[in-house]
Formats: sequence, C-alpha cells, structure tokens
Amino acid sequence: MGMGMGMEGNRGVMVENEGAMTGEAAATTMEEQLEMVAKAFVDHYYNTFDNGRALLGPLYAATSLLSFEGQMVKGVADIVQKLTQLPFDQCRHHISTIDSQPSGPAGGILVFVSGNLQLPGEEHHLRFSQMFHLIPTPPGSFFVQNDIFRLNYG
Amino acid sequence: MGMGMGMEGNRGVMVENEGAMTGEAAATTMEEQLEMVAKAFVDHYYNTFDNGRALLGPLYAATSLLSFEGQMVKGVADIVQKLTQLPFDQCRHHISTIDSQPSGPAGGILVFVSGNLQLPGEEHHLRFSQMFHLIPTPPGSFFVQNDIFRLNYG
Repeated sequence: MGMGMGMEGNRGVMVENEGAMTGEAAATTMEEQLEMVAKAFVDHYYNTFDNGRALLGPLYAATSLLSFEGQMVKGVADIVQKLTQLPFDQCRHHISTIDSQPSGPAGGILVFVSGNLQLPGEEHHLRFSQMFHLIPTPPGSFFVQNDIFRLNYG
Repeated sequence: MGMGMGMEGNRGVMVENEGAMTGEAAATTMEEQLEMVAKAFVDHYYNTFDNGRALLGPLYAATSLLSFEGQMVKGVADIVQKLTQLPFDQCRHHISTIDSQPSGPAGGILVFVSGNLQLPGEEHHLRFSQMFHLIPTPPGSFFVQNDIFRLNYG
C-alpha cells in the first residue's frame, strides 16, 4: 500500500492514503490507518528537521505549543525561531518507536516517538522522546497543536 | 501553597488547589496552574503504581487507551489487567522531568514524563518516558484518556 505526503496549502501536512482510493483501505482497521498517518508524519517531520528545520513552520499554527527541554513557546514564528536557533547546524534523527492513539471525536492523533539523534562532530548518540498532538484540517491534512521534546539522559 | 488530591467518586482524580480557595491563585498564571495539576497527578499516579497498581483503575474510563511497550488495550478492565500482569511485583519510579501543555478548549492537559524505574533485585535502573492525556470531569477532577509508555533502551 502506497502513501504520499505533500504540503496542503500553506499550513499543515496532507497525508494521502493511496490505498483508500483503490479500495484497499477497506481491509485496514482504524488503528492501522492511524499508524500509517503517524508513520508518514514522523518520516516527513524528521526528514524536514534534518534537512532544513526552518521549513517546519508550515506544520504549526498560531495556537501551537512547543515545549523543548522544558522551555515552552507558542505560535509559528516563536517555534521556528526556537528550532532554528538550536546550537547546532545539522543533526540526524534515528527513530526507534512510534506509538499512535486517536484523540477525541474530531479526528486528532497523539503520536509518541522515541529514538536517538546524532550531532555533527559528536561520536555518541543522544536518546530522545517526543510527542505530537496532530489536529485535522480537512481535507486529509493535519497540523501540530502540541509538541513536547525531551532528551533522555542516562 | 498547599495542594491536596483525593478520589472523586468512583472515577478520576480530584485536584484541589487550596491556593485558589484563599485567593492566592490570582497570582498564578494558567501555565503555573497546569504545572501544579500535572505535578499532583504524576505524584499520585506513580505513588499508586508503586504501592498497588491495581488501584490505578479509577483513574481510567471506558474510553481510555493504554499503549504499553507497543501493545494497546482499551477500557478500565483491560488496562488494569495489563498493569497488574506485568512480570514483576514491585517497582519504584523516579521522576526526572514533567512537561505539561493545555489541550483543546475543554480543559484537557497533556502531561509528558521522563524518569527511571527500578525493579526488585535489579541493580540497574531502566529509563522510561510516558505521556498522559488528562480530560476534565467536573468539578476539578480528571481521568486519563490516553496513556503511552515506553522504556528508553540505551
């Protein structure tokens, strides 16, 4: 089953489930569809982060909250500023686990990620955990309402 | 500022902010109040887990979801069964960080926890991360709608 992902207008991520268009989706459960959306979001998010994190802005909205290592900022401009001012130029995320659960009757999705990231010139990886609350913005697209990131120190 | 916590009927956790009753809360921001609720919930949750996790049942509801190391179960009975059948009798959680964000207009709270836990007879601690989506059930009480737990392997 294929899955494409593209930008939906100026805001959010559109997740296309090609299976749904060919009828394959009839054989998938809601849980499997949530997992596919979460996987597509996570691939898109960390690829974008690692290749130019200023471009993450369209995934957030004016109401979005980011807590990064305990510091909370709100809104697209402050979130992008926080992300682009992190004290490293490049990094590489490696994802270990993705958990997803439905959130509320309006089609929200909670996505919980664990993994590690490697900074330039650093031999050791840093463990991290991160959660996202995705809110649907029809048709078939989502934005990040809540984002909480923590390094996991040994 | 004092804070008490008790059970609200048969379902949920009631968080009492004594400061609010004496007028102290006027000096606290919404962010500080969220942090107090999250801290009180986390204290209550892990104390209960470590001293008799079968008693966590009243914190969940029929719609609640628990993803524990990638396995998802739904509802109070299955969640309590999952928690009580974990292959150890006792454990001790040590909390490192608590992050909280408001979720939606209805007063929900996202709580993101990192820490470590020690099992009986084990010398080494295990790192974990866990998130909770708390939904308000008036007056002043919450239940856990979403719960995602992961060990963080080195």
